[in-house]
Amino acid sequence: MKEKIYPLNTWYVACYSHEVNSDKPLARTICDVPLVFFRDSNKTVAAVEDFCPHRGAPLSLGYVENGKLVCGYHGLVMGREGKTDAMPKQRVDKFPCIKAFKVVEKYGFIWLWPGEQGLADEDALPNLFWADSPDWAYGGGLYHINCDYRLMVDNLMDLTHETYVHSTSIGQSEIEEAPVNTKVEGAQVVTSRFMENIVAPPFWQAALEANDLPKEGSVDRWQVCRFDLPSHIMIEVGVAVAGEGGINAAPDKRAGSIVVDFITPESDQSIHYFWGMARDFKVDDTALTEQIKQQQGAVFAEDQEILEEQQKNLNLYPDRQLLMLDIDSGGVMARRMITRAIKAESR
Amino acid sequence: MKEKIYPLNTWYVACYSHEVNSDKPLARTICDVPLVFFRDSNKTVAAVEDFCPHRGAPLSLGYVENGKLVCGYHGLVMGREGKTDAMPKQRVDKFPCIKAFKVVEKYGFIWLWPGEQGLADEDALPNLFWADSPDWAYGGGLYHINCDYRLMVDNLMDLTHETYVHSTSIGQSEIEEAPVNTKVEGAQVVTSRFMENIVAPPFWQAALEANDLPKEGSVDRWQVCRFDLPSHIMIEVGVAVAGEGGINAAPDKRAGSIVVDFITPESDQSIHYFWGMARDFKVDDTALTEQIKQQQGAVFAEDQEILEEQQKNLNLYPDRQLLMLDIDSGGVMARRMITRAIKAESR
Amino acid sequence: MKEKIYPLNTWYVACYSHEVNSDKPLARTICDVPLVFFRDSNKTVAAVEDFCPHRGAPLSLGYVENGKLVCGYHGLVMGREGKTDAMPKQRVDKFPCIKAFKVVEKYGFIWLWPGEQGLADEDALPNLFWADSPDWAYGGGLYHINCDYRLMVDNLMDLTHETYVHSTSIGQSEIEEAPVNTKVEGAQVVTSRFMENIVAPPFWQAALEANDLPKEGSVDRWQVCRFDLPSHIMIEVGVAVAGEGGINAAPDKRAGSIVVDFITPESDQSIHYFWGMARDFKVDDTALTEQIKQQQGAVFAEDQEILEEQQKNLNLYPDRQLLMLDIDSGGVMARRMITRAIKAESR
Repeated sequence: MKEKIYPLNTWYVACYSHEVNSDKPLARTICDVPLVFFRDSNKTVAAVEDFCPHRGAPLSLGYVENGKLVCGYHGLVMGREGKTDAMPKQRVDKFPCIKAFKVVEKYGFIWLWPGEQGLADEDALPNLFWADSPDWAYGGGLYHINCDYRLMVDNLMDLTHETYVHSTSIGQSEIEEAPVNTKVEGAQVVTSRFMENIVAPPFWQAALEANDLPKEGSVDRWQVCRFDLPSHIMIEVGVAVAGEGGINAAPDKRAGSIVVDFITPESDQSIHYFWGMARDFKVDDTALTEQIKQQQGAVFAEDQEILEEQQKNLNLYPDRQLLMLDIDSGGVMARRMITRAIKAESR
Repeated sequence: MKEKIYPLNTWYVACYSHEVNSDKPLARTICDVPLVFFRDSNKTVAAVEDFCPHRGAPLSLGYVENGKLVCGYHGLVMGREGKTDAMPKQRVDKFPCIKAFKVVEKYGFIWLWPGEQGLADEDALPNLFWADSPDWAYGGGLYHINCDYRLMVDNLMDLTHETYVHSTSIGQSEIEEAPVNTKVEGAQVVTSRFMENIVAPPFWQAALEANDLPKEGSVDRWQVCRFDLPSHIMIEVGVAVAGEGGINAAPDKRAGSIVVDFITPESDQSIHYFWGMARDFKVDDTALTEQIKQQQGAVFAEDQEILEEQQKNLNLYPDRQLLMLDIDSGGVMARRMITRAIKAESR
Repeated sequence: MKEKIYPLNTWYVACYSHEVNSDKPLARTICDVPLVFFRDSNKTVAAVEDFCPHRGAPLSLGYVENGKLVCGYHGLVMGREGKTDAMPKQRVDKFPCIKAFKVVEKYGFIWLWPGEQGLADEDALPNLFWADSPDWAYGGGLYHINCDYRLMVDNLMDLTHETYVHSTSIGQSEIEEAPVNTKVEGAQVVTSRFMENIVAPPFWQAALEANDLPKEGSVDRWQVCRFDLPSHIMIEVGVAVAGEGGINAAPDKRAGSIVVDFITPESDQSIHYFWGMARDFKVDDTALTEQIKQQQGAVFAEDQEILEEQQKNLNLYPDRQLLMLDIDSGGVMARRMITRAIKAESR
């Protein structure tokens, strides 16, 4: 039996809300289980196995009618609880059920609990204050990457890679020169880095400009990465006019945002990577939202090749020990937290 | 050893006659064996393993000269019996033979007997009366689909799928509402369905029009699926002006045809699907033949995705029992017949 | 454990010199080991495993700066001996090393010793007199082919395939009609064939013309294939005006060249095939060099399909014995030499 590498009794982001509309189901495999998502007659999202109990066709090839999922092969009508609701000219009450999963739609995302359904606890959803606030705007996307989800956790908890992977946008040598501090705060791993009196890299110069601040002057820059189980990473990032208090500077002296990362395992070696940025300035400027999303999308696409090639290398040499330097502490501590969560589940 | 899923001592359609011309061999894998087809000096088709006894190159990469198959690597000349006929400057009488297979060209198809060659019996070929008759015209094509051939048998023996998979052409809800009757008649499984007083779906409206009948009036529609071993399915389909006797209506009151399906396993999870339609009206209208072929090709292409995705799902959950409803009886009985034939061979 | 099919304590051609420039590393897998090639500050080529000791990313995704290889993920600086040279803000002296390989740049190629590094012996490099001589010109290319490297050895040691695979350029029936002679000369397998009083095939007619000789007159043609361990094959080929001494004819009566073949295993079923031609006429005519390279490239591309399909066939029937005719003796003897070399290594 293969080693379990992700906890299951937890909430993963399964999709953006806008991915599931009312007439078409959405197929997505999460934690090795092919699922189909659809909206019932109340527009409430449902998720069941993507397997028709009649002949095994994927239900996602069908359509949604009156809030029921209709199989596209022979018309079996599936309900949100995994129980067949109807089928033309058939008595369906003894049809075998398929597994249904708890899903919650909140903050613009659809959250899935892949493990023991009786344990699904809506209160355990993370609190995304920015997602419900009129003072914040969010833009983001979704990438499919062929790697162990923990490689992406490592990536986001060690931002020294920005200097190399994203050298033309957010990277700068000051990142790796600044000391990094990693600690566990409650159930969260926090890695932070503060750079003072530096010149902003291109991405942040544009953000300064968007905030009507001088883009070429000295700034203080910060990066605070917060990892939560199972694999959510929120990164407070920003720059402020130098000497104005850095991360604590007054709103009119800074440009800051939260990099939002939800990493959902598709399989042991592939992920759905939901990335985005939440900001608390010019929140009504939808053109700016779109522009930031385009820029961020281009930057984050740079990680894909390196993560996929890293994965292939690790597959070739599964027994090689990797280094765990100070810059890797964020990933190391996050992985420890993950391992403990998996162990707790198996008890 | 993997389970045997198809009988071998039987005739399969290997290719259309026109696929094997006199100067170029044709490569095709049937029942897991890579074969090469060519025509000898009498234009008689031959089939041997696609493996040169010299160095193992596929003979199909070569050419046909004077009715012999010449290897494209070093010029070995292979005869129709699998015995090397010549090779430049070599004595070939002790060269190892490759396996030759019985093939028969009949009805516009080339038929192969993949099993024990001594048992090959030309009399066991099916009788395709329409193929040799001047009163019938045939048009058809060939699709390659990645699924167990029995999934295609199921598909064709349960036409309720038309309502969902082919909703814009031949599907209509009356199909699933009409009772279905399945029985074994001798060595044949027959599934039939009769719909009375309905409006014809688009495909059949066009056929009515081609027969100078009113396309929007009430019709009686029929579907009679006949399965024969190993995997041939002929489906009598048609519509007649309502109340004129249905399938037995006079020729000037009906539009009918035979859907022709030969399903040949390439491997356990892939097939060569020879599909077509034979009709007994306007048989000299080659433009109509082409038009029907285009339409039918488009309709039958709709099955490919669902069958391939169904196969992937079944591979993921090999132990799940599928339902066997009344509509599935045709497939169920056909599979039983197949299983008995395989068992009989292993005795 | 899988059978070893190539010797390792020997020199293989890894790349052309021009493939490794001074700012970009080159990734290439040789004998199953992913390697990265780069030039140090002296422009001397180095080769190390393509695996960053920090987090396992391929070093080849990075860049070369001041003669050091910089990892493109987090900036680890790798030296030519496989020892980490530096990393921003890190003490690197205890970092684990990666394996470094002996490489030699000579004759326009970069040669790699994949086996025991202490045994690497520059004196064991082949002597390519034509590569260092101003009287010779070379042009060539590189193909990636999915086959066991020994199939390419067989191919080049039995040129009767030219008649079939290269029928429009260098093939002619006289090749297979002429007797072939194969023998071992020291550490070399030599297969030779001499054809007298024939008409030159198209490729050689062009060469005669380039040498100001009548292209349609009678010629004597020769092919002398020389195999050296591990898998280098030099083929003396040419035509001379008939009766002027053939391979020994005076320079103004002949057009000859050396077909250069270095076959480097990437894996058990794939190769890097370095092909080219060295000639001793019109050596300053770079347009002619380019033209010959284009022609030869087109001819040698014809082998790819047949070798890859032959490989697939052999994989399907691993136990079938292939024939070993007189024309196959060159390959047979070369394989024997390879087998002895592998055995000697395992002692």
